[in-house]
Amino acid sequence: MITRLSILGLPILLGAALCCTTAYAADVASPDGRIILQTELDADGRPTYSVSFDGRDVIAPSHLGLLSDEADFITFSNATPGSVSSHDSTWQPVWGEFASVRDHYNELPVRLTTADGKQLDLIFRVYDDGVAFRYHIPEQKSVNYLTLRDEATEFNLADDLTFFCIPGDYDTDERLYVKSALSKLGENMQLPRHSESSLIPGLAMQTPTVARRDDGKLYINIHEAALKGYPAMALEADTARLSLKAHLTPDRNGVRGYLQAPFATPWRSIIIADNAPDILASQLILNLNDPCAIADTDWIKPMKFVGVWWEMFIGRNRTWAYSDKYNAKPGVTDYASLPSNGRHPANTENVKRYIDFASENGLDGVLVEGWNEGWEDWAGWVKNRQFLFDKPYPDFDVDEIQRYAAEKGVKMIMHHETAANAADYERQLDTAFRFMKEHGYPAVKTGYVGMIIPRSEYHSSQWMVDHYNYVVRKAADNRIMIDAHEAVRPTGISRTYPNLIAQESARGGEWESMGGNPPEHTTILPFTRLKGGPMDYTPGLFVTDLTAYGEGATSKGLTTLARQLALYVTMASPLQMACDLPDNYRKYPDAFQFIRDVPLDWADSRWLEAEPGDFITVARRDKNSDDWYIGGVSDENARTAEIDLSFLEPGVKYIATIYEDAPDADYKANPQAYRIRTKKVDSRTRLPQPIAPGGGFAMRLIPQH
Amino acid sequence: MITRLSILGLPILLGAALCCTTAYAADVASPDGRIILQTELDADGRPTYSVSFDGRDVIAPSHLGLLSDEADFITFSNATPGSVSSHDSTWQPVWGEFASVRDHYNELPVRLTTADGKQLDLIFRVYDDGVAFRYHIPEQKSVNYLTLRDEATEFNLADDLTFFCIPGDYDTDERLYVKSALSKLGENMQLPRHSESSLIPGLAMQTPTVARRDDGKLYINIHEAALKGYPAMALEADTARLSLKAHLTPDRNGVRGYLQAPFATPWRSIIIADNAPDILASQLILNLNDPCAIADTDWIKPMKFVGVWWEMFIGRNRTWAYSDKYNAKPGVTDYASLPSNGRHPANTENVKRYIDFASENGLDGVLVEGWNEGWEDWAGWVKNRQFLFDKPYPDFDVDEIQRYAAEKGVKMIMHHETAANAADYERQLDTAFRFMKEHGYPAVKTGYVGMIIPRSEYHSSQWMVDHYNYVVRKAADNRIMIDAHEAVRPTGISRTYPNLIAQESARGGEWESMGGNPPEHTTILPFTRLKGGPMDYTPGLFVTDLTAYGEGATSKGLTTLARQLALYVTMASPLQMACDLPDNYRKYPDAFQFIRDVPLDWADSRWLEAEPGDFITVARRDKNSDDWYIGGVSDENARTAEIDLSFLEPGVKYIATIYEDAPDADYKANPQAYRIRTKKVDSRTRLPQPIAPGGGFAMRLIPQH
Repeated sequence: MITRLSILGLPILLGAALCCTTAYAADVASPDGRIILQTELDADGRPTYSVSFDGRDVIAPSHLGLLSDEADFITFSNATPGSVSSHDSTWQPVWGEFASVRDHYNELPVRLTTADGKQLDLIFRVYDDGVAFRYHIPEQKSVNYLTLRDEATEFNLADDLTFFCIPGDYDTDERLYVKSALSKLGENMQLPRHSESSLIPGLAMQTPTVARRDDGKLYINIHEAALKGYPAMALEADTARLSLKAHLTPDRNGVRGYLQAPFATPWRSIIIADNAPDILASQLILNLNDPCAIADTDWIKPMKFVGVWWEMFIGRNRTWAYSDKYNAKPGVTDYASLPSNGRHPANTENVKRYIDFASENGLDGVLVEGWNEGWEDWAGWVKNRQFLFDKPYPDFDVDEIQRYAAEKGVKMIMHHETAANAADYERQLDTAFRFMKEHGYPAVKTGYVGMIIPRSEYHSSQWMVDHYNYVVRKAADNRIMIDAHEAVRPTGISRTYPNLIAQESARGGEWESMGGNPPEHTTILPFTRLKGGPMDYTPGLFVTDLTAYGEGATSKGLTTLARQLALYVTMASPLQMACDLPDNYRKYPDAFQFIRDVPLDWADSRWLEAEPGDFITVARRDKNSDDWYIGGVSDENARTAEIDLSFLEPGVKYIATIYEDAPDADYKANPQAYRIRTKKVDSRTRLPQPIAPGGGFAMRLIPQH
Repeated sequence: MITRLSILGLPILLGAALCCTTAYAADVASPDGRIILQTELDADGRPTYSVSFDGRDVIAPSHLGLLSDEADFITFSNATPGSVSSHDSTWQPVWGEFASVRDHYNELPVRLTTADGKQLDLIFRVYDDGVAFRYHIPEQKSVNYLTLRDEATEFNLADDLTFFCIPGDYDTDERLYVKSALSKLGENMQLPRHSESSLIPGLAMQTPTVARRDDGKLYINIHEAALKGYPAMALEADTARLSLKAHLTPDRNGVRGYLQAPFATPWRSIIIADNAPDILASQLILNLNDPCAIADTDWIKPMKFVGVWWEMFIGRNRTWAYSDKYNAKPGVTDYASLPSNGRHPANTENVKRYIDFASENGLDGVLVEGWNEGWEDWAGWVKNRQFLFDKPYPDFDVDEIQRYAAEKGVKMIMHHETAANAADYERQLDTAFRFMKEHGYPAVKTGYVGMIIPRSEYHSSQWMVDHYNYVVRKAADNRIMIDAHEAVRPTGISRTYPNLIAQESARGGEWESMGGNPPEHTTILPFTRLKGGPMDYTPGLFVTDLTAYGEGATSKGLTTLARQLALYVTMASPLQMACDLPDNYRKYPDAFQFIRDVPLDWADSRWLEAEPGDFITVARRDKNSDDWYIGGVSDENARTAEIDLSFLEPGVKYIATIYEDAPDADYKANPQAYRIRTKKVDSRTRLPQPIAPGGGFAMRLIPQH
């Protein structure tokens, strides 16, 4: 084991009334020895850590600590490192990018003691692909409850790395990334208006964030893992000191969290690699989460789905609401007596058309938004009651839809938009889940659009973190899968609760209807947001020019059609939407074939080339066959991917079906120009693959055994 | 009809951009003509009202209005009085002080229009026993949601009345009353430390408050009725102007309420009488509430009960908690593996003793506190999860207790202490009520001790008002009766939901274990707190000196034994506890007989004499027999009640059994000295009845047909 443990000074026991620092320093290295984490108590009695990689500093000495009303865990008089232990195991995810994942690390615990005898543990783990640490408050007589005021954790960077990040915010992650040297972040951070934003004062960024050193020999991702019972962490940036510091989301009373010993915080994680693809390949964050807590997971099944959804984005002519009565009140208004506004797609007849389409194309499910009472009068925050989750609109015949979907072999996906009224959702949750079970819904898309009720909370404050986790656990008890939108950014919780099958928590495909997502956006998300868990990005947009509908939409999507196919591979998720209208897919049946074929669960994944903000090419092997799939995307520039197929089984011929941009394709000028061709390949093939500006490609490789 | 309607100026229609005041003034009188309410738009365009009684001013011109972010309903350019209508009806309460109640009033609506065309209605009602008014925001295009910032309602007093009041507070009503001229309130208001107090800044009082004029010819009670969807009202006092102004409880973000048109505020009520007993007799607040909303009320039954409760107040030797593990966590800790602390009265064997006692004495129910997981670690506010409402402690065999109670013909009363975590209670409510139904509990005592979660709220803020009402409605759906402790002060909601069978919401009998309730306290409560609804005061304390238990208690109750019997009549409630230990009742079986006999529901009530702070004598006729009961209490002074029995059926002889203070009784020196005697009386009898200092008496009168 390549681990050194050096105790510079033995702990000296002193009366608790005296304050005295006992110097110590301890190192722990990664199994392969390339990463070394050092921790010590500095001259002021403050614990620090630093990290080096291949002999060069990555994290300069950085403070650690927690500040609460009841205990000052900032300065300590004593530190006692435990012994380093080595761990090596392998686990099998219920779904994911790999059939099996190795969890291999060295761990060092350090017990810190304050001058008044209170104890705090630091737990460090060093993996070949990064480091992580957490705070652990042990059970002790003098510490029970903690009113948390601050977390002192710093990430002091040894170099002025270039970051890809979004602004620190208590309420939203739906932003475009800025690319900036940390030293220049103040000039470069963009803060466009956002309807549900609570920006952190000063300069701050959300995690996950990815950064690279100018020499291209270092890439890091900073995030957290296993966020439970604690607020989410953002990072305050000090551009002069090249320092990032933990900024925990407070509640509106200014308290960061209410803790009780024994308690372990989420892990603070730094993925470290000497190349960009290895950041994508890292399973560090999942490894830091607890094993699956669900005994029987047979009911958790990846789903590909269409939905009554995009219709509401293509203009002004369709609504989630059933009627035009602006102040209709669920539970008060008799909806059956209201006339339909005639622009409500969540009606039985239309839903059946989606069911037909899903059934004809072998898709698993149909999502319907706008099915339940309350959409007429969506006024988040200013009212205490919003939606009813067991009251369909008069034109949504839930029993008939249940019967029809079952007949067609299609599963219905429920929608629970809460208008961010989490208190009301908890009130109704038993009823809501019972209604789902009675009507055969295996999965629900939850939504938290708006400012949070309870009005003391933000989307990422402790109470809300507890809420999301509670909904997931309660759903697991009911054998229900969750697709959480506008929830706190994921931290690998889906390893423990794989019924948390996807989340949004980033700017997703819907924004193609609101100005579009610049192509680089989806070359960054896999390095950042997706490290926490899969995203319900809603790819599959074939008709990108929404002005064509003539319903008032002004947006044009910033993507080629072929790129949309690539996203099913580059943005892997066990829950994938085919977001466009069935009629649009019927116009391009050959291209749609890829969406029909692409798996949702993978045995293996290989990132062949990647650079955040520029391009990603990834190959993945289907978990249920020997087929490989490759997806590649570029930014706004054309490029040619160089695909090395040496990962294929040697000696086996594969037929590659290639969905690619036509030579004249362009994400703005000519987005729907695509070609489909086939080619015989094997493990010796080196395939140059052109990509249009803002374009992409997708391939299916079938072995010819 | 003795109502004058005078329109001084016809409304003149002007462009909405112009601001112009149209003078108007309208009067409406009580059916008997003694009370006249006048309303007008003053020179500044502000609506005002004033009230006179028997030709003398009671309320001087006082402003009305609402201020919100979306609409300024403070000044108006136009006012249009509607016509006065007269209403006269009679209704039968499910339970109460009378078998039937007359609801007789004249009503005047006034439509106010702002310069920008927004509309607000004032609705005035004048009864023989007082006045009331509310704001109504009609449905209109230009007003939908209102973020309420202030209510301008004033009660400007024509004279410097003497008030009995407790300090204005967002979180508690558990205070002793001060008696003070309004002009001197600043000097007299007492603000002793209280663990869950959020005092209103400046000088303020809670409602209900009672006041009298020095000449003894005027008594008023100010309160509100039908508090729904709105925060509770306190009163800011301006002692120089003799003015009280509505102060609505805000949430912690400073918003008073979130309203949506159409919306009617609670009624602001002023009971008016020329003598104190008529304040007690007034049914104004119940009359202002909606009729019973429960179709079948057969399951709502008054209850007399004992409880595993007082044991925990008499010293340090018994606990609500099962174990001494200070940080045991419901849902985490395996309680079955914990040893009992041996001081936990909520155990099966002990509960059976209470069931036996109830059964032997014909009492309806047994309350048990400390039966469920979570009491070890009661840390309100600082933790998000507190109690589980379906998890009995290991030594509380809920199935066996259910069986045993049923065998003995006794009903169990559930206890749901929430530690003021209303959000968690709503989360668990379905489960909690299901657990109650499965185990045969017809009623639950709820508790909200501590600071409220959601942390944006106070006990009396709008969200919490909605919460209490929600729990009551949901309980009604489940045929469950509610006894709410630490909930917002009642406003007659129990007329609409008679399953809200009692509340605490004042300083109750438990305080006899914490310094005691001075005798005058229970001569004031019927004039104030009880006007909103019955109180679970927990009378029946026979052993008042808690030091006698030798378990460390230091308190001595401030009451004679006979007075405790009187409280069952003076503090009428359909839910009455016999609060003391069964063993104490066994020592005084003759006195306990009155508690066995006293009814909980009344056909008629007659207040024979009363003065707030001094004494009350009331006679009530049993709803289920021809028996009369009389209760009388004094303050700290001895006195002789002069009881005029002319209300008895003429010509019928009654045997009165009189439970009275012994001649040497004294609430401090000799509290347990009582006598029981019988006497023949009839409607011509004038009975002088001595009362000891801090004492009282109780009588049962049985007709000898």
